[in-house]
Amino acid sequence: MEAYSDGVFSIASTLLVLDIALRPPGSPLEQLRHEWPGYLAYVVSFLTISAAWIGHSALTDRLDHSDSLLVRINILLLLFVAFLPFPTKLIAESLRDANAERNYVTLYGLTLLTIHLLIHALDAYARREQLYSHDQEGDELRRERRTLWPVVLGYAIAIAIGIVAPTVAVLLYLALALYLVIPFRDIRRLLSGRS
Amino acid sequence: MEAYSDGVFSIASTLLVLDIALRPPGSPLEQLRHEWPGYLAYVVSFLTISAAWIGHSALTDRLDHSDSLLVRINILLLLFVAFLPFPTKLIAESLRDANAERNYVTLYGLTLLTIHLLIHALDAYARREQLYSHDQEGDELRRERRTLWPVVLGYAIAIAIGIVAPTVAVLLYLALALYLVIPFRDIRRLLSGRS
Amino acid sequence: MEAYSDGVFSIASTLLVLDIALRPPGSPLEQLRHEWPGYLAYVVSFLTISAAWIGHSALTDRLDHSDSLLVRINILLLLFVAFLPFPTKLIAESLRDANAERNYVTLYGLTLLTIHLLIHALDAYARREQLYSHDQEGDELRRERRTLWPVVLGYAIAIAIGIVAPTVAVLLYLALALYLVIPFRDIRRLLSGRS
Amino acid sequence: MEAYSDGVFSIASTLLVLDIALRPPGSPLEQLRHEWPGYLAYVVSFLTISAAWIGHSALTDRLDHSDSLLVRINILLLLFVAFLPFPTKLIAESLRDANAERNYVTLYGLTLLTIHLLIHALDAYARREQLYSHDQEGDELRRERRTLWPVVLGYAIAIAIGIVAPTVAVLLYLALALYLVIPFRDIRRLLSGRS
Repeated sequence: MEAYSDGVFSIASTLLVLDIALRPPGSPLEQLRHEWPGYLAYVVSFLTISAAWIGHSALTDRLDHSDSLLVRINILLLLFVAFLPFPTKLIAESLRDANAERNYVTLYGLTLLTIHLLIHALDAYARREQLYSHDQEGDELRRERRTLWPVVLGYAIAIAIGIVAPTVAVLLYLALALYLVIPFRDIRRLLSGRS
Repeated sequence: MEAYSDGVFSIASTLLVLDIALRPPGSPLEQLRHEWPGYLAYVVSFLTISAAWIGHSALTDRLDHSDSLLVRINILLLLFVAFLPFPTKLIAESLRDANAERNYVTLYGLTLLTIHLLIHALDAYARREQLYSHDQEGDELRRERRTLWPVVLGYAIAIAIGIVAPTVAVLLYLALALYLVIPFRDIRRLLSGRS
Repeated sequence: MEAYSDGVFSIASTLLVLDIALRPPGSPLEQLRHEWPGYLAYVVSFLTISAAWIGHSALTDRLDHSDSLLVRINILLLLFVAFLPFPTKLIAESLRDANAERNYVTLYGLTLLTIHLLIHALDAYARREQLYSHDQEGDELRRERRTLWPVVLGYAIAIAIGIVAPTVAVLLYLALALYLVIPFRDIRRLLSGRS
Repeated sequence: MEAYSDGVFSIASTLLVLDIALRPPGSPLEQLRHEWPGYLAYVVSFLTISAAWIGHSALTDRLDHSDSLLVRINILLLLFVAFLPFPTKLIAESLRDANAERNYVTLYGLTLLTIHLLIHALDAYARREQLYSHDQEGDELRRERRTLWPVVLGYAIAIAIGIVAPTVAVLLYLALALYLVIPFRDIRRLLSGRS
């Protein structure tokens, strides 16, 4: 299960770069400046997949054994992870337009939220069926659990805002991805250890 | 053999998303509504590859040793797994048209059926040549064997129906993929344990 | 080294399917019939990569340790394996034309031959530097060595023929890939064991 | 962490081949001759990713344990590795033009330099936090450290030259990739051992 999952995670994150479109005409600098939605969507999707992968591997590392339902919840998760390059592409190609595309931003936010929820469904199922080994829980898994409700609330707000201001919503998705990925506690610990 | 196979399975399933075409003109909601064949083909192919991967890894996990013919049957299987994104793309781009494309649906069904049959060829060869270890057989492998003939019959009927009604055939492929992936017994057990 | 190599092998073989072009106009059956160079190039490249992977993993399985030059020869091999989808695409798109494209077929043949030669360079270097463990050599590695010169000769002839008759050359590449992949001895043994 | 990283490295290096554009009109030989920026960009990017992978796996092989900040620095590295196919594509499509595109060459050089620096950031962090096991350091890791400043200087010069002469800059990137990949010491040792 791990090899297949790691494969899908790494491929999906690498395919994202294909979504940064190449505008044929215009000077290079203009094109690069024009391409910011592509870069933004790339970074948001890459960080969200990375955060999901960190949570996922913290979870699978602690599994003592697996069962057939866990494998299926995992497949459902991978179905959305592998799907992410598509809404990323829609964002990359549509945010450029004056009337930034509301529906694409909603589809994108729902996909990001679903990935987040399915990681927690995996964790909840593994706990309920006692599939975990009895080792200590690990920092990443505790971080993952702590962030469940703040992040769900964050996505709900961002998706709602996206109906009025799509670009703001995508920036909120970026903030949520950074919040999930940046290990504030460890950085604080590191900084305090330095002083 | 497992690393290479897992690689091909995970890449093929992740490439599927490239097949959801992006229609340039029209409002986003219209476009998303117009794209249903793409989404449908994505879900059917992803679930079929996932079901094949579950069967394949249940099988390779139990192998005691391998031989050169098993490796070659496996390569033949991977040739069809890696091929699947192509008929998926044909379906995604053609179901949209009024006269939905019969031949593409037939090619698609034959590819799905071939993948299913080659998993069973691997299993039959491994049993005949006594390549399995003598552990207990495992739920997934028994499920895989139980579903051989119902699923072959199902594909034969779906492919035949596809000549008259291609969209119905694709919905039947979806039903077959769900039948292969959803672990009815485990869900029943889980529900009865709850009451 | 194995994980990275297996990754490149499996991704290169899965990307090949993107090279089967989709002709927009015409009836589906006509299109499928028109697409034969795409299918042919897909099968030849997939089987050649599979044969290279069989030889490569037979070799790496037996390695006792590695050294920095072996890693570099391996990277050179992967550079050509990862390159293969490009000439495959050229073949898929050009064989269709009346005056089938000589140069593309030559480039394709040279790439296939280089992959074959680099597998043997890896093997020769590993033997010279005594990197192998002292176990028995294994069937696949002996098969690999036995086929070195017949296959080099075969590619030389096929590439020469390709200057006059490109399609014949591609069929010869197919024959060489089949010769590398099909385990004639094992099939004979299996058949004689049956009678 | 290794499986996911190896996945991203191998996929990014294999996707590079998609960047060699296919010019539709003109005779094949003309097209191949016309495509040299595509081939050049492919080789430079492939060798740079390979060099980064060699350094990365020399580093991860020696890790005794990991921590959450190391995982995040690694994700930042993978974000740039997975990004590389995009500037590679820009180079492949723009060097062809008479006024070779300065900005693309700068973006490309900065990406290559960032990958190089992040490998060293991983190494520096692992040393500082004593994450390495106490085994001997290994040739590759020592080579990696020795090349830090020469290569940073090399990229700085090449990027500066790229503002005036973009094609020369890309050739310098090639020289730097070759310098990183070719194991001069081992070849010298091998040659002196032969005489």
